[in-house]
Amino acid sequence: MTAQPRTGGREFCTTVTVGAALGLLADLAPTEVEAVPLEAALGRTPATAVAAPHSLPGFARSTVDGFAVRAVDTFGASEGMPSYLDVLGSVAMGRPPEVAVRAGGAVAVPTGAVLPDGADAVVMVEHTQETMPGSVEVTRPAAPGDGTVRADEDVAEGAELAPAGRPLRAQDLGLLAAAGVTSVDVRRRPRVGVVSTGDEVVPPATRDLVPGQVRDATASALAGLVRDAGGEPVLLGIVPDDAGALEVALRDAVNRCDLVVVSAGSSVGARDETAGVVSRLGDPGILCHGLAIRPGKPTLLADCGGVPVVGLPGNPLSALVVFRLVGVPLVRRLAGTTRPPPEPVVRARLDRQVPSQTGRLDVVQVRVTVGPDGPLASPLFGASALLSVLTTADGWLVVPEDATGLPAGAEVDVTLYR
Amino acid sequence: MTAQPRTGGREFCTTVTVGAALGLLADLAPTEVEAVPLEAALGRTPATAVAAPHSLPGFARSTVDGFAVRAVDTFGASEGMPSYLDVLGSVAMGRPPEVAVRAGGAVAVPTGAVLPDGADAVVMVEHTQETMPGSVEVTRPAAPGDGTVRADEDVAEGAELAPAGRPLRAQDLGLLAAAGVTSVDVRRRPRVGVVSTGDEVVPPATRDLVPGQVRDATASALAGLVRDAGGEPVLLGIVPDDAGALEVALRDAVNRCDLVVVSAGSSVGARDETAGVVSRLGDPGILCHGLAIRPGKPTLLADCGGVPVVGLPGNPLSALVVFRLVGVPLVRRLAGTTRPPPEPVVRARLDRQVPSQTGRLDVVQVRVTVGPDGPLASPLFGASALLSVLTTADGWLVVPEDATGLPAGAEVDVTLYR
Repeated sequence: MTAQPRTGGREFCTTVTVGAALGLLADLAPTEVEAVPLEAALGRTPATAVAAPHSLPGFARSTVDGFAVRAVDTFGASEGMPSYLDVLGSVAMGRPPEVAVRAGGAVAVPTGAVLPDGADAVVMVEHTQETMPGSVEVTRPAAPGDGTVRADEDVAEGAELAPAGRPLRAQDLGLLAAAGVTSVDVRRRPRVGVVSTGDEVVPPATRDLVPGQVRDATASALAGLVRDAGGEPVLLGIVPDDAGALEVALRDAVNRCDLVVVSAGSSVGARDETAGVVSRLGDPGILCHGLAIRPGKPTLLADCGGVPVVGLPGNPLSALVVFRLVGVPLVRRLAGTTRPPPEPVVRARLDRQVPSQTGRLDVVQVRVTVGPDGPLASPLFGASALLSVLTTADGWLVVPEDATGLPAGAEVDVTLYR
Repeated sequence: MTAQPRTGGREFCTTVTVGAALGLLADLAPTEVEAVPLEAALGRTPATAVAAPHSLPGFARSTVDGFAVRAVDTFGASEGMPSYLDVLGSVAMGRPPEVAVRAGGAVAVPTGAVLPDGADAVVMVEHTQETMPGSVEVTRPAAPGDGTVRADEDVAEGAELAPAGRPLRAQDLGLLAAAGVTSVDVRRRPRVGVVSTGDEVVPPATRDLVPGQVRDATASALAGLVRDAGGEPVLLGIVPDDAGALEVALRDAVNRCDLVVVSAGSSVGARDETAGVVSRLGDPGILCHGLAIRPGKPTLLADCGGVPVVGLPGNPLSALVVFRLVGVPLVRRLAGTTRPPPEPVVRARLDRQVPSQTGRLDVVQVRVTVGPDGPLASPLFGASALLSVLTTADGWLVVPEDATGLPAGAEVDVTLYR
């Protein structure tokens, strides 16, 4: 675009809260289901709850090294008055028992072996003595069930191995493996198209810059946020400030992606141009133009024929703040993630006042240090244009819409960057 | 192995705390440095701090849409008494200015454009009026620096873009891109060999089990934990309880990997066998055999010719608990990660008593619910053999070595699973 600033340009039709903005896309459908092998399923979101095909461990099992017995045969046993039992044999790991326990008998079992027929308890080897070949002294009584787990004690047949909507964790993979579930139906990773705009923006690999040029920082950072949220970034390159070129790029993006993010340019003129193009991409079109958030007010949200389009502020810091609050929830919605992983949050005391305005959500970057009375949050002010504020910050806090600011000493929840 | 339990078998030479165990491997060297492209650098750990090759943004820049001026020319300006300035031209985005600002002059600039020579401030367009062609009225005074950022205000040349030892976050990728750093020197992902043992253990894909067989749950779960910690799991399969076969497998693992994890079998005999094999793999050999932790006591730590070997309990839940506390820090040490990402921790009140023993670290799996007075932690007891306890849990807490237990109502820090 040219430099002439526009006076009286229509800047925002409507300004809505972040919550309201997300509400406008509440019925976003998740991506289709695909089967992935277990070894690729970490962090993927099951489309439906995964049920156990059979009970686990699947057989009554010893949980100690010792002797399988009938508990009744050990009643009253003590060091001074042991129960004497006949050793009838032993059970090998990984094999069905070849011998049963009868009254007055015992079968040697290692931890994890099948409980032989007739036995209802396992006496720990520490509570036995083999004084004579073929016989064992039990020096402590066992109750039925001692030293064993039931065949369905870990998981009953048909019970839930992993819930729908929660990304799979390491231990979930373990339980699925135990149940023989080696393929999981998950939501396809949402493809998030990232379109950068601006005559001043050049690729990161550009070695020498002409004064006025800046390298595209936003696309690389957005790609990271998209991956962290469970999406697949599709970097669609840099488009000059030209409505025709932008329309071609965005139409292609909307056709190929589940969500499209466009850095809408930093000047009012560039933003208006983006809005004009987005409004032509499909119905119902622009949902809101202006978010009650700082930084990040000049954000545009649209539904272009079922594909959400987010127009982010041209400033990289503002763009990333908005994408965390608006884009990440949309990626999760598309991925079917209804139970996202918990974020690290620390309760800290503000070391100075944070001004704000009612009706606006303020996102404040902070450093966190440990003071004598616990964690201290130090707001990082300075020009919002500075990306280094985000890399220096340990985390961020919000001043909610209904607050007029926070006094020094206030207790705040800081979400820590991971 | 056969089933005969061994009485009087040497079970543990020494039992050490988790802290002491990690101290035994304190001088573990990180993996070598490799260059990765920026788009593959998310979560990777820089081997050294990355310095800015030049200042950012690299030129004095306007942060608003408006007019570049000499601040002195606007002193005293007001709505009633505006300063009249000659419009000398405009600056286009991404290009060097073609015109300078002289006394009594103004140059139109969009947000993000280069500040023209002679100007020291930018007046927002909202504080101007273009009533006559070629001239602009400024209705508010600007101070020097207003509406601008300095050429090195984001990052000075040589300043740190990203620190060594902290895995790269989304915003770090953005700042690196802005600086033109498209290749980052990071530590190679540590290769973590996972060897499963046990005559009863069969691959997860085994459809029908013979009574006594169990599928290998631990390897899949460990692979997930290794990935989460920044390592590359190398699943080396299942080895029967046979010293010769185990030695072949472990020698191969130690040769190929930076860290080797072996599930040491669930019975005392199987554990002794593993210890015997590990002691022959290289010097100095076994460092400790027995951890003061529950669950997870039968853990073995060795240094086999510079490659750490962790012998985990045969029980999957115990193995995963120990790997989180001992294995994950080792993976991070190998990856050069000195500043790991913060974990989500919630302060909660115990809803019942947790017994423990002095001198032992107890790891307790809990569910977290929100009660009337804040978060409540409900310990999940039950047989430690049950992997479903881990998948049901929201997180875990530790009862430290010096405590004899925790009373109901105690405030505890629960680390939440992600």
